[in-house]
Amino acid sequence: MDISTAYKDNNYKIHVARNILENRLNTYTEQYESVYYIIDENVYDIYKDTKLSFIKSPLVVTEGESFKYVSPLMHTMEELLAAGIKRNSLLVVIGGGATGDAGGFIASIVLRGVDYIHVPTTLLAHDSAIGGKTAINSEHGKNLIGAFYRPKAVIYDLEFLDSLPRAEVLSGFGEVYKHAMLNSPELSEELVNITADSIDVDELPAFIIKGIETKMKIVIEDEHESGSRKFLNLGHTLAHAVEYKYKIPHGQAVMLGIIAALYISNELNGTDFNIGNHIDYMRRHGYPVNLLKEMDIDEMMQLMMKDKKNHRNDYISYIVFKDQNTPEVMDIKIENLKKILAALKERI
Amino acid sequence: MDISTAYKDNNYKIHVARNILENRLNTYTEQYESVYYIIDENVYDIYKDTKLSFIKSPLVVTEGESFKYVSPLMHTMEELLAAGIKRNSLLVVIGGGATGDAGGFIASIVLRGVDYIHVPTTLLAHDSAIGGKTAINSEHGKNLIGAFYRPKAVIYDLEFLDSLPRAEVLSGFGEVYKHAMLNSPELSEELVNITADSIDVDELPAFIIKGIETKMKIVIEDEHESGSRKFLNLGHTLAHAVEYKYKIPHGQAVMLGIIAALYISNELNGTDFNIGNHIDYMRRHGYPVNLLKEMDIDEMMQLMMKDKKNHRNDYISYIVFKDQNTPEVMDIKIENLKKILAALKERI
Repeated sequence: MDISTAYKDNNYKIHVARNILENRLNTYTEQYESVYYIIDENVYDIYKDTKLSFIKSPLVVTEGESFKYVSPLMHTMEELLAAGIKRNSLLVVIGGGATGDAGGFIASIVLRGVDYIHVPTTLLAHDSAIGGKTAINSEHGKNLIGAFYRPKAVIYDLEFLDSLPRAEVLSGFGEVYKHAMLNSPELSEELVNITADSIDVDELPAFIIKGIETKMKIVIEDEHESGSRKFLNLGHTLAHAVEYKYKIPHGQAVMLGIIAALYISNELNGTDFNIGNHIDYMRRHGYPVNLLKEMDIDEMMQLMMKDKKNHRNDYISYIVFKDQNTPEVMDIKIENLKKILAALKERI
Repeated sequence: MDISTAYKDNNYKIHVARNILENRLNTYTEQYESVYYIIDENVYDIYKDTKLSFIKSPLVVTEGESFKYVSPLMHTMEELLAAGIKRNSLLVVIGGGATGDAGGFIASIVLRGVDYIHVPTTLLAHDSAIGGKTAINSEHGKNLIGAFYRPKAVIYDLEFLDSLPRAEVLSGFGEVYKHAMLNSPELSEELVNITADSIDVDELPAFIIKGIETKMKIVIEDEHESGSRKFLNLGHTLAHAVEYKYKIPHGQAVMLGIIAALYISNELNGTDFNIGNHIDYMRRHGYPVNLLKEMDIDEMMQLMMKDKKNHRNDYISYIVFKDQNTPEVMDIKIENLKKILAALKERI
């Protein structure tokens, strides 16, 4: 399945299917004088003798988030320059979201910009197929240095998902679940039904594609200044705090954040999300729901207040639902949010 | 005098006059929540108690080209983040072309891009008022890492030129001279007449403005794929080699390169540039014309062949004149160029 982006310009295709990497890549690489590969070391270890054996002398880079710092980034950039990368070379970045963020950033600044293709290898990375954000981390926080720079294509070969550790599947599924909720109650219900007993990666491609399309729709709407892009932060306000404090994978924290968002929606907007069902479902799949019971509310509030998305003092911006179909941004008074989270804590 | 750029979008103004910095800057800064200043240490030392005394706690950075490396760049970037720079902050970069290149690059990547204004403090930096190229140096060469990123304005306060060392004036004047030649024989003649006895910075503003306009015209034409941008490399092919070998300032090397370009034009295109007059004029002002006599032709050829602008083997791309009015790109056979440069060497 191919999805085409719908920006005003610089559009690209997102190819999503099993076992497509080498073939799809060939249709692009033949247009370039030379091709360079950046590959996450964990991914390369697993696939170097099989799926990735067609690649000669790749630059194998330190795994995941550890690549998103100046020092490893510059090392790889100098290697590319030493190898003779040119303006009309293509850079292919194979790895999860972090590898894509840093590899895309390299593409954006080496020789003032070369073309690149991202090959996501995780479930979470479907989220970065849209958006064109590249970045690395600063001493002062994540993703503070970067560029807006779109790839020439995203080739999402689902075969890579077979080797994902369970914790990674749970994390990536958090974003799949979020996108389903932002799409429609029907899609969320379908997703919950299909994954009622277990989360089987083979069942997810249709939802991954829907997720990418949902994000695309929201990002495009946002270009017309609707502000809808903020909806993509569903679950993220509390998630960032939980993730920072308890060091759990991003998408798992998002799941906990979504529970909070639904609970707040019920309290403040009178929606009737069945919180009990959501909690049971997440517990069943192994999400660390009990952190919501353990958390120190004051500490969480402190962390949330640091979030760059807050623009009013004494308020925290939270993505909630107006009704089951409609997300909205709500500025919630800090004292009020504290009370609601305390009640949720009791409820777990 | 204000010049407006004429790009398709993201246009900005270039303000050129004496003693305008603080006033002009105020009209911009009031639109931003916060303003941060990056200032070349040499410039700050000279003007901190006078012209720049209105600036509170600037980031003073290592002088000129030495700032264009990853380590000082990242140090300044982290300082900006520590100081709390936001998306809607303005970055003001005060210094020569190198400070502008690196400061503009910081603006392009910190928080994925903030607005910036360049305040050039050298004669050479008039050349970077147009073009939107930002960059730093790699271990493998100059300007290999960077971004295309336009400023919100350029404020060229000519008072800064008063404190320039003579070598800097000669260097910057090289680009002024080049732009006059690319503009018209009339403008070049006028420039030569006005500077017949000495190069007085106070006489140059009209030519600086003409130079910026000439570059603008060429860059805009180039956007329509005329390829005219290459003309801006007039004098640069030999200059890069001379500069690398003899470590003389960029614009001084360009002057020597222009002599070679005119000599080649006479030899291959039958133009009648008066080489003797050009040599006398440059000698009189202290340009190191004798390097053209000392140079090892084979070594210069080697260095020129490395230039990224050559796209045919056994040929070197050189900007020459078809007639006194018309620059052109000529691919010259290596053996042929060697002979001509050897003859020029005898001629000096």
